[in-house]
Amino acid sequence: MHPERREPAYLFTEKQVADKSETARRFLDTRTRLNVNVEHADNFLVKRFYNLDHNAYMEGSLPAKYKELMGLVASACLRCDDCISYHVIQAYRLGVTRPEQEEALSIALIVGGSIVVPHQRRAYELLTELYG
Amino acid sequence: MHPERREPAYLFTEKQVADKSETARRFLDTRTRLNVNVEHADNFLVKRFYNLDHNAYMEGSLPAKYKELMGLVASACLRCDDCISYHVIQAYRLGVTRPEQEEALSIALIVGGSIVVPHQRRAYELLTELYG
Amino acid sequence: MHPERREPAYLFTEKQVADKSETARRFLDTRTRLNVNVEHADNFLVKRFYNLDHNAYMEGSLPAKYKELMGLVASACLRCDDCISYHVIQAYRLGVTRPEQEEALSIALIVGGSIVVPHQRRAYELLTELYG
Amino acid sequence: MHPERREPAYLFTEKQVADKSETARRFLDTRTRLNVNVEHADNFLVKRFYNLDHNAYMEGSLPAKYKELMGLVASACLRCDDCISYHVIQAYRLGVTRPEQEEALSIALIVGGSIVVPHQRRAYELLTELYG
Amino acid sequence: MHPERREPAYLFTEKQVADKSETARRFLDTRTRLNVNVEHADNFLVKRFYNLDHNAYMEGSLPAKYKELMGLVASACLRCDDCISYHVIQAYRLGVTRPEQEEALSIALIVGGSIVVPHQRRAYELLTELYG
Amino acid sequence: MHPERREPAYLFTEKQVADKSETARRFLDTRTRLNVNVEHADNFLVKRFYNLDHNAYMEGSLPAKYKELMGLVASACLRCDDCISYHVIQAYRLGVTRPEQEEALSIALIVGGSIVVPHQRRAYELLTELYG
Repeated sequence: MHPERREPAYLFTEKQVADKSETARRFLDTRTRLNVNVEHADNFLVKRFYNLDHNAYMEGSLPAKYKELMGLVASACLRCDDCISYHVIQAYRLGVTRPEQEEALSIALIVGGSIVVPHQRRAYELLTELYG
Repeated sequence: MHPERREPAYLFTEKQVADKSETARRFLDTRTRLNVNVEHADNFLVKRFYNLDHNAYMEGSLPAKYKELMGLVASACLRCDDCISYHVIQAYRLGVTRPEQEEALSIALIVGGSIVVPHQRRAYELLTELYG
Repeated sequence: MHPERREPAYLFTEKQVADKSETARRFLDTRTRLNVNVEHADNFLVKRFYNLDHNAYMEGSLPAKYKELMGLVASACLRCDDCISYHVIQAYRLGVTRPEQEEALSIALIVGGSIVVPHQRRAYELLTELYG
Repeated sequence: MHPERREPAYLFTEKQVADKSETARRFLDTRTRLNVNVEHADNFLVKRFYNLDHNAYMEGSLPAKYKELMGLVASACLRCDDCISYHVIQAYRLGVTRPEQEEALSIALIVGGSIVVPHQRRAYELLTELYG
Repeated sequence: MHPERREPAYLFTEKQVADKSETARRFLDTRTRLNVNVEHADNFLVKRFYNLDHNAYMEGSLPAKYKELMGLVASACLRCDDCISYHVIQAYRLGVTRPEQEEALSIALIVGGSIVVPHQRRAYELLTELYG
Repeated sequence: MHPERREPAYLFTEKQVADKSETARRFLDTRTRLNVNVEHADNFLVKRFYNLDHNAYMEGSLPAKYKELMGLVASACLRCDDCISYHVIQAYRLGVTRPEQEEALSIALIVGGSIVVPHQRRAYELLTELYG
């Protein structure tokens, strides 16, 4: 009943995203640097959690692009700028259009309220850098 | 660039959902009863907000069924049982399958953590009543 | 610069509120019963915190009625039904009108988003019982 | 029953606030810059939400100055620095005194707990810049 | 560097806890009933997450009893009654005393604020049933 | 039944911590600077709250080192970087080992979900600076 999970096919690499957007580059560089340190710690539970997290967004019953947008909505509602940047970038890499990203962010705005507005403002800056 | 928003085509009425699931019936009946009281208050801002909320889930760049699942992910991350019931029911009415609902709930579980577990348990009970 | 804090003058007792509203009565009775148990535990930090909490809502630079509405807005944004009931009742006891309560709840709705809606629905039921 | 909503009368412009406080200036400049980008996107739901948000803080049954303090309490409880800065500035522009701002922040501290402390520290810095 | 994780040694079974406390029995019975339904769904990600969740509370560098109290503090701060009941019961089964449980709950109260109070009241009722 | 609360015995001063970690130094310096301003405001409720907050982490039924880790778990679940830094430093000063800190952070990760990941990454950087 549950289809096989499989890796999604990305249209762009992280490097291509970083070349388009300075905001994305800063986020990706910081994340890479901090993750090297986390990996070096080699914590069993953290590694297991990261693996589970990776699995949750693979192609399955739901297309990966919509899963990334679900991650974006969750991140915006819970107001995590890093998480928002991550899922905007992932969705972009999977071919999600700007209007689709905006609609997902609008759901987060309605569900989460005006407290989401400052995060949405910053997300829109990233959208403009990525989509022009 | 933004397509026209339009009402989605539901496969089932709320009454049909209530006939399948006792949990859904209780939720829908309470919601209807309390909404009558809210409507009677006739508050300008509340009515405007409800209208905006309705608009956010219409067919647009994103199919309505994925928007309802985004609402579900947001509701589960923010841990609102009523909101979870509402979006599970709406998604069901739009033809979303059980594996699709489960995948959305799994994203909420990974993003929101074990604090989501009790809400997911109750959501699975509703899923079983609806999908058997 | 800071005026003396002093107890506000209530227009109604908790008993009068309970006589008007069944929802208020159930909340007040449960709260009283559970508080007897907490008091019996006689925990130093809990008693100190309760005292501080009591102080925060006294008449001061801000009139107590607006402080209770601030507590209401905070409670609705953080989505705590018991806290909402408490502050609606306290505001009522201080002579706050229904339109004033509704405006405070609307600020919570805009700041906190649709996730506040189910709590607002229940709050409106309490408002109708109290104000008719 | 509900009075007409109307624009509040500000005692100070945003420019006057920015001239008094470097923290306020940085916040207002960034907000203006990012909002230009959001406006350019011309998203229907976002514009509607901003309009609703604006309406919620107008003079009504409750004086605008207390509404801004309610927005401040909500922002501090939900721990959004940008939102806190915004409402501190708006309240200042409406003639709210420093003791009144501090009392609102204390309610947020008691309701929201020590997790509010770092935000309160930053808010006090802004208060000192504005009120001396 | 990280010691082996291993199952903690419980002093009491869940059944013994249920026999002491009606509140615990209701929680445990509902949880068991709903978990049967979740297990029947046999969702890969859910099973993996439950396994990870189980691992996080095993004896390790930190004694299991303090880990359960950390879970209790997290649950109270995030205001999840089911999670609070679960960790109070687990801590009780591991020999945690009532004063230790109260101190953990007081940390949650200070970090999380008065919004934690209604949950703490209900937790104290469970404590009284368990410890007399 | 409740033992006397008493100040814990620190193995390291804040200055020694700042000398080991640049991240800790920046946090401690900013906190000191902002706290001078808060103290100058001399707000009754704030001072009372700070005092209560201080009391909650003293040696009592629970050893202070586990209380600091409980504060860490709460801070990570509620996603407050300043609070995380504070409790990591306090725990370090009380002789908590790196594996103990990591286990506490893993509980926060499981309870709070992937939204905790960016905060955990930054916490691990601080851990590496402190413990090498």
